[in-house]
Amino acid sequence: MTEQTTVAPLSSLSPAELEAFLASQRTAYTDLQNRGLKLDLTRGKPSAEQLDLCNELLSLPKGHKDASGTDVRNYGGLSGLPELRAMFADLLWVEPEQVIAGGNSSLTMMHDCLVQLLLHGGPDSPRPWSQEETVKFVCPVPGYDRHFTMLASYGIEMVPVAMHEDGPDMAAVRELVKDPSVKGIWVVPTYANPSGAVCSQEVASELASMETAAPDFRIFWDNAYAFHHLTEDEAKSADIITLASGSGHPNRPLMFASTSKITFAGAGVAFFAASKANVDWYLGHQQFASIGPDKVNQLRHIQFFGSADGVREHMARHRAILAPKFAAVDDALTSALSGRDVATWSKPSGGYFVNLDVLDGTASRVVELAKGAGIALTPAGASYPHGNDPDDRNIRLAPSFPVLDEVETAMAGVATCVLLAAAEKLSGTQG
Amino acid sequence: MTEQTTVAPLSSLSPAELEAFLASQRTAYTDLQNRGLKLDLTRGKPSAEQLDLCNELLSLPKGHKDASGTDVRNYGGLSGLPELRAMFADLLWVEPEQVIAGGNSSLTMMHDCLVQLLLHGGPDSPRPWSQEETVKFVCPVPGYDRHFTMLASYGIEMVPVAMHEDGPDMAAVRELVKDPSVKGIWVVPTYANPSGAVCSQEVASELASMETAAPDFRIFWDNAYAFHHLTEDEAKSADIITLASGSGHPNRPLMFASTSKITFAGAGVAFFAASKANVDWYLGHQQFASIGPDKVNQLRHIQFFGSADGVREHMARHRAILAPKFAAVDDALTSALSGRDVATWSKPSGGYFVNLDVLDGTASRVVELAKGAGIALTPAGASYPHGNDPDDRNIRLAPSFPVLDEVETAMAGVATCVLLAAAEKLSGTQG
Repeated sequence: MTEQTTVAPLSSLSPAELEAFLASQRTAYTDLQNRGLKLDLTRGKPSAEQLDLCNELLSLPKGHKDASGTDVRNYGGLSGLPELRAMFADLLWVEPEQVIAGGNSSLTMMHDCLVQLLLHGGPDSPRPWSQEETVKFVCPVPGYDRHFTMLASYGIEMVPVAMHEDGPDMAAVRELVKDPSVKGIWVVPTYANPSGAVCSQEVASELASMETAAPDFRIFWDNAYAFHHLTEDEAKSADIITLASGSGHPNRPLMFASTSKITFAGAGVAFFAASKANVDWYLGHQQFASIGPDKVNQLRHIQFFGSADGVREHMARHRAILAPKFAAVDDALTSALSGRDVATWSKPSGGYFVNLDVLDGTASRVVELAKGAGIALTPAGASYPHGNDPDDRNIRLAPSFPVLDEVETAMAGVATCVLLAAAEKLSGTQG
Repeated sequence: MTEQTTVAPLSSLSPAELEAFLASQRTAYTDLQNRGLKLDLTRGKPSAEQLDLCNELLSLPKGHKDASGTDVRNYGGLSGLPELRAMFADLLWVEPEQVIAGGNSSLTMMHDCLVQLLLHGGPDSPRPWSQEETVKFVCPVPGYDRHFTMLASYGIEMVPVAMHEDGPDMAAVRELVKDPSVKGIWVVPTYANPSGAVCSQEVASELASMETAAPDFRIFWDNAYAFHHLTEDEAKSADIITLASGSGHPNRPLMFASTSKITFAGAGVAFFAASKANVDWYLGHQQFASIGPDKVNQLRHIQFFGSADGVREHMARHRAILAPKFAAVDDALTSALSGRDVATWSKPSGGYFVNLDVLDGTASRVVELAKGAGIALTPAGASYPHGNDPDDRNIRLAPSFPVLDEVETAMAGVATCVLLAAAEKLSGTQG
């Protein structure tokens, strides 16, 4: 194990040194396998400890009427309860009438929007998107796999662009939107999945104001992690709706958010926010599909939070649980990989993911090795359209769900897999 | 008021008698207006008293795990909780694996199916329905307005057929389905909205087995009132899924149900049941739109009901509240209209509606008169595609929401409006 005291880039090792290193990592990996682990870093799910923060919801609401006297148990109220809309309008910097409080899934609201764009088009579409010969979306990568699979399911072409630390690569975006078949872009503006990037005011402003060949270009602004800070330096999401309105494209952004990672992941409330014309458009179609959302659950959330500040205070309690796990990821990777020049990783100040880039061509192997040692990772390439990472480099780590101990154990294991895969690659051997 | 002692068909009155009758009804109507009523018989909403039956739900669930140990607070489980699926499989006479427990709205599940048929087609579609030149649906009338408005919103042509006491007019249906562009039919099989008709085994069997030109013909079997009996003579819904499977068309029926009129109208659980191929098809698309339904609410329902028998017992409590209201409707109409030959109405043994047919050409006037007296009725024609009742005859009465007193008052008022409109019509005067 002498090579662990000489921390040199793997690529700088002599063939003999590399062979010794490979042998040592094989031993380490065998040890890892022998531990019989069963750990899961695949999905951005809140942990039981986080969910416990909200157990009061299980016995709410008290009573069955909201402040206006509406019996929340009955039908109706397609836009959601006014108090909850106002609370999240405050948090999202929009007007209450621009916010719809819906069911338990913002993904469903995104899907609703996409389906209606396909079948009817938007307020400024020349025709339904399904009648276009080709529809393309700009997809910042790495990105959220469910965005990509949704587009793929409708045959929408995905054009990847790089996601930088301040948002999508705007030089690339500017070029792409000259094509009238490019109808939209996905953006996770705050603590992006998986890179943790925060879209800057400048990038947001350019997204809002740029000329696009398609008159009905849409920014699917999935602000899933708007309030999900990991440090006291809280990023503020750019106000895309005001920016777009101010630059003459009020209907361009469709904003989504939810309490899925604030209260209960599967039983929260989702929000849609947009221009008045888009809100009318959304409700105009939604009225045929629903008599209204679950208002009992909305009242539950109103009573649980109390106010927008209540949401902010609640998020600090999530941070206290999550921040040590993210620190553990960074510690494990730093301790094992520092100086080896075989991986880089993000140090997010919010959100649910760490983005790990390993030696080109080894991401799939790392995931395979981890699986062999009982550590489930998201499939390599999952953060790319069609699961295709052309460099086979990217791995999304989701440390929120396991307890801290398990995160530490799992990440030490992942680091071993990264080193072993890199050594295999550099030495031209495998398995 | 002497004419009220001589109960003769209005059409048999002499001109002088009719004039006197008209005058007396105008007086009665003025009296009605002077009462300053504000009553609403428009929608099939449960009353506060019915909703109170389920207030225990407001402080459920106890704990946060289902019988299998799943933490219902977290993401996942697109098919819904197994226990709840099994409970409603029992009630709907299907296998648990044929049932999906979803969100709070069966209308949304119908819409999901329609949208996927449009964008992808079904398991046996030659192409997506949106790529067909024309798509037509057979619409039994009178029927449920939200079925029709959903079809209209996607430009689907609606072909009305008569709804008889045993289901849709099969002679007409048989002819229509020879047209390959006829892709489906809506059926509310049990206590139909609004006629209260119950689809017989024979009609169901023919719907399931008939030859259709479209290989992907679909029966949207909206069993919204499957358990909603008003008498002890409980109608059994025909088992459309087994019938269709047995006759070689397993994918034809799509069954929908919900607890919207069992627990909380806006916060219940909806169900989709169909062949295995259809369930796979549904989930295969739904996976792109949702990470799973609100399982906390599903656990709440499991604990509240306890078992399928718990659901049946609970429905008896609804019946105790609803049956007197339906009796009040019948009493008011019988007392005022009997022998006048200006109206017929249904005496449903279940469901949420009374179907009132008035003198041809007077339904709109009756609704207008009622509105003028503070009694809100569903717009005339609402039970027809595009709101167009060619005979202007049909009015849907929904007596569930108001308290019993109000139902009695409102229905006496409606009867006055029916008589006044008929007298106006027969005497060739109005207003």
